[in-house]
Amino acid sequence: MQEISSQDNGRLKAFAALCREKRERDRNGSVILDGVKICRDAVSSGHRVRQLWITEEAQEKYSRDIPELITASDEVFVIKGSAARKLSELVTPQGVFAEVERPAWTEPAELASGSRILGLCGVQNPENVGSSIRTAAALGYSAVLLSSDCADVWSPRTVRAAAGTQLSCRIASTRDFAGSVRELANAGVLTCASALHSDSVYVSDVPRDRKIFLAVGSEGSGLPDDVTEACEIRIRIPMSGSAESLNAAAAAAVMMWELRDESLLK
Amino acid sequence: MQEISSQDNGRLKAFAALCREKRERDRNGSVILDGVKICRDAVSSGHRVRQLWITEEAQEKYSRDIPELITASDEVFVIKGSAARKLSELVTPQGVFAEVERPAWTEPAELASGSRILGLCGVQNPENVGSSIRTAAALGYSAVLLSSDCADVWSPRTVRAAAGTQLSCRIASTRDFAGSVRELANAGVLTCASALHSDSVYVSDVPRDRKIFLAVGSEGSGLPDDVTEACEIRIRIPMSGSAESLNAAAAAAVMMWELRDESLLK
Repeated sequence: MQEISSQDNGRLKAFAALCREKRERDRNGSVILDGVKICRDAVSSGHRVRQLWITEEAQEKYSRDIPELITASDEVFVIKGSAARKLSELVTPQGVFAEVERPAWTEPAELASGSRILGLCGVQNPENVGSSIRTAAALGYSAVLLSSDCADVWSPRTVRAAAGTQLSCRIASTRDFAGSVRELANAGVLTCASALHSDSVYVSDVPRDRKIFLAVGSEGSGLPDDVTEACEIRIRIPMSGSAESLNAAAAAAVMMWELRDESLLK
Repeated sequence: MQEISSQDNGRLKAFAALCREKRERDRNGSVILDGVKICRDAVSSGHRVRQLWITEEAQEKYSRDIPELITASDEVFVIKGSAARKLSELVTPQGVFAEVERPAWTEPAELASGSRILGLCGVQNPENVGSSIRTAAALGYSAVLLSSDCADVWSPRTVRAAAGTQLSCRIASTRDFAGSVRELANAGVLTCASALHSDSVYVSDVPRDRKIFLAVGSEGSGLPDDVTEACEIRIRIPMSGSAESLNAAAAAAVMMWELRDESLLK
């Protein structure tokens, strides 16, 4: 355990760069966890912590949780004073930060092993991406396919919104989302596009006798045409008025719930 | 129409205070709308704009939308240069801002006139409050009851997350949430508490033969005990594992959808 009190310390600067710069995280294959619960959940599910950073205040405040985190960490740093402010985007961070190894991407071809798969195409808001991954994990969706123009799934904002569930979910990324949809269809999966088209069927009328892939687009522009066309059916949520709409993460949650595999939930 | 180019202009300073300070908004009974779509939606649904502020760039970029906004506004200000930066919390604001009059609160006793009512108790995150109001509006919930310790429903963050739907939804606020629940129960409404208790019934098993009130608590601590006890039944969403959980707004969306009044949706 090393104590660090200077903002100019080299290790602190290097860790702050990991927290703040996508390029650094990508180069090191890192996920940064910010907060005691998210760190504890990662450790409980078997993730090794490369480096753990805790403030003196957090060491005292979370004294019940810290020993388990320390045991699971290769290196531990205790930060004194205000040096922790460099590490978090939050106004009032808890003062507990961990770097864990990023899980390998899942190949799009391997997605069809589970009975329910979520796809996010062009969803650029990190909170919507993170919240949708969290909902997928909670509702028994075994994998999430992301188009390469979605928000960075490993950014601190996305990790926070997902409550770290991208560490335990299978995540695939593709530059050819429509091509991946066709592969899933070829594997016998019912591919559904969330779309406000006039020929869209109500989400409650979708048959449940096959595996299901649900594609959701961005809130502003929806799914690209080639993705909507690659999907076998277009589905929508009935609403109370034509001017009404749902937030992307709320719409994804309602659809994932309605299309759930009940045998997986309890 | 007045052109303003100085950051020191008195009207600009007064409007910036409205945008940034809850106390100013409360004193003036104001709602600040930030963005062209949210302003347009408010005007389309009949709201009068007290003052409209647009940047020179926005005037050009949104030239199709601006005339309708100007017609609905008592006063119009065009801002030149960087003076607009004082008005928005956003990194890249669109440069279209409107002050509209805050609708009157609905009395808690009047909530039972609709068939579906949402209650948020102690939800302190403005995005969760806003997103839940938006979902309620889209899924035919006629009113929303907020405990007085919820996030400020009229803050720019909450208004943005709700896409301005709090202007058209009936909103009630109470210091005695459990008391309001009992009043609804006395009026014949089935009162449901979202709770992860062992005796909670699955949300899909809730009977639909009466009006329904759904109470949702904060993500961290759930509903207070007195509210859970005041409700007739406790309900929960089945999930894939005991460690999994949903974001408060996603959980509220799934429950609102599952408890919807189908006759109101199309």
